[in-house]
Amino acid sequence: MITPPRPDVASAARERLAALATPPGALGRLGDLAVWIAACQGVAPPRRLDSVRVVIFAGDHGVARYGVSAYPPEITAAMVRTFVSGRAGVSALAAAHGVAVRVLDLGVDDDLDGVPDDVRRFKVRRSSGPIHLEDALTAEETRTALAAGAAVAREEIAAGADLLISGDMGIGNTTPAAAMVAAALGLPASEVTGRGTGVDAAALAHKEQVIDQALARAGARTDDPVETLTALASADLAASTGYLLEAARQGVPVLLDGLMAVACALTADRIDPGAAAWFAAGHRSTEPAQALALAKMGLEPALDLGMRLGEGSGAVAAVPVLRSAVAVLRDVALLSELGG
Amino acid sequence: MITPPRPDVASAARERLAALATPPGALGRLGDLAVWIAACQGVAPPRRLDSVRVVIFAGDHGVARYGVSAYPPEITAAMVRTFVSGRAGVSALAAAHGVAVRVLDLGVDDDLDGVPDDVRRFKVRRSSGPIHLEDALTAEETRTALAAGAAVAREEIAAGADLLISGDMGIGNTTPAAAMVAAALGLPASEVTGRGTGVDAAALAHKEQVIDQALARAGARTDDPVETLTALASADLAASTGYLLEAARQGVPVLLDGLMAVACALTADRIDPGAAAWFAAGHRSTEPAQALALAKMGLEPALDLGMRLGEGSGAVAAVPVLRSAVAVLRDVALLSELGG
Repeated sequence: MITPPRPDVASAARERLAALATPPGALGRLGDLAVWIAACQGVAPPRRLDSVRVVIFAGDHGVARYGVSAYPPEITAAMVRTFVSGRAGVSALAAAHGVAVRVLDLGVDDDLDGVPDDVRRFKVRRSSGPIHLEDALTAEETRTALAAGAAVAREEIAAGADLLISGDMGIGNTTPAAAMVAAALGLPASEVTGRGTGVDAAALAHKEQVIDQALARAGARTDDPVETLTALASADLAASTGYLLEAARQGVPVLLDGLMAVACALTADRIDPGAAAWFAAGHRSTEPAQALALAKMGLEPALDLGMRLGEGSGAVAAVPVLRSAVAVLRDVALLSELGG
Repeated sequence: MITPPRPDVASAARERLAALATPPGALGRLGDLAVWIAACQGVAPPRRLDSVRVVIFAGDHGVARYGVSAYPPEITAAMVRTFVSGRAGVSALAAAHGVAVRVLDLGVDDDLDGVPDDVRRFKVRRSSGPIHLEDALTAEETRTALAAGAAVAREEIAAGADLLISGDMGIGNTTPAAAMVAAALGLPASEVTGRGTGVDAAALAHKEQVIDQALARAGARTDDPVETLTALASADLAASTGYLLEAARQGVPVLLDGLMAVACALTADRIDPGAAAWFAAGHRSTEPAQALALAKMGLEPALDLGMRLGEGSGAVAAVPVLRSAVAVLRDVALLSELGG
């Protein structure tokens, strides 16, 4: 059980919110988010979110060779190079909003020659097992990936992170992520499967079948969240889970992105209940599994802009909403300061 | 008829959007907003929105003495002082997002002694006529207020504004604003009346009656948008209308806030059709008249955070969404730049 954000500080923040020179409730969700950030930081009003850091976990998925994606797996390695060069969607958004970006190869099916060594420092393996036919990882690889994610979170926190974000890059990644959500919630594939980056109706039906086959293969092992990672996830998703879990254990708030981040967040909360109290939701995904997982964690996204780029981009776009929340609770006058 | 944003530049921007190294449609509304900004600026990709300026038009409303608001009219002058001291909600948000704030007294029912002279430079009168009993303004005052707003827009544009926002402050302001929307759309008060800063059910029914009485009193004069301002608006709302109209005429994009901004935008578009093409919507209001006016102009808000603070605050909170849109169209790699 993870220690929750401080309820006493949440109360103090709520009192300050009520004492602001604004009509009751007029700040809407900004008020709720400000109270949450204050409770996470243990101080009301909260500190500004100056250091926001997104870590993109990259990896390939064996299942991507089986017709579940609109794109070939080779795109994963190409996108890692695009992150390194700072020209991806998340790079542009992060630069616009003063967010630091780090990309890590956990399981890309490519040696990534010429890419800086520290990108490959945590590499677990090349690709993952096709989950409808075999386990994604060995138990040992799952442990290694979880530990890698936790180590990365500690590094980012040591570097001063006020807020962490996870992104994921890997062609085919919505298939294991939807399977993780189905496993966590005990749902069939029909309820969790979406179009990812844009498969057609026939491919969607096939994807659903692949997920059902994977769930059937994993069987009762899905009762255990770590076994679920071994059976159904991948190195990047297991590492992302470890990263989110460690952020919660260290008491650093996290802004979640789309399906991959939310599937990992839900898994982290299964491994150590209470983790979800450290998470907020950045952007609503078009993937049905994201909404189901968010509902389970009691989270409502700050933005709904129809983005479906992945990479952590929706969460990065939502960072200014959290900064707005902090600004109002810190900087708006108290009614008692006005008067005469 | 106002010249629209450049369709040729919109086409070029749309082509660049399709050529980015992102899956088709993956940027969602950010893509549409980026195309709009490019067309407004006449250049694709668009320039960054470095200079964003919000002007808050303040004024009292005679109708506020007749039980339509949860707050006494004296709050208007107190809030002008809070804007001047930089401690209001919009001040905090503007500081967080690098937005310049200017407050102007168009019709506050107070001499505002001690407030800097330039805040009162455009003052038209003290308060306005209670619209259910008499005209809000004289025809001459309406002309003066419209001209004041246009002059302010020209000043802000001369100062380098890349994007303009209007805010409104005035206890009772949702009553004339809802009446303006009802007049523009030919709707009864029952469809446009909302709770403002929070009146109870009895006061809501009374407010609806006041609006119906005002609409009946104005009669066929509501067929003319300038006559509508004279009969039903106020100095701050007429000035805001002039400001939005001039921004459109000068070809500078505007991000609209809540009900007051949208009521004025709709009126500007009635005065000079095509103005609305220069407007985007920042934040969804809980006031029903805002949704109706936005639908008429074909606009969809970027944010829906349950804010109902007024002051332009919802639009200021949405500025980072437009900056995200500009960033992706400017800075994301083209597919043709990646490759081998």
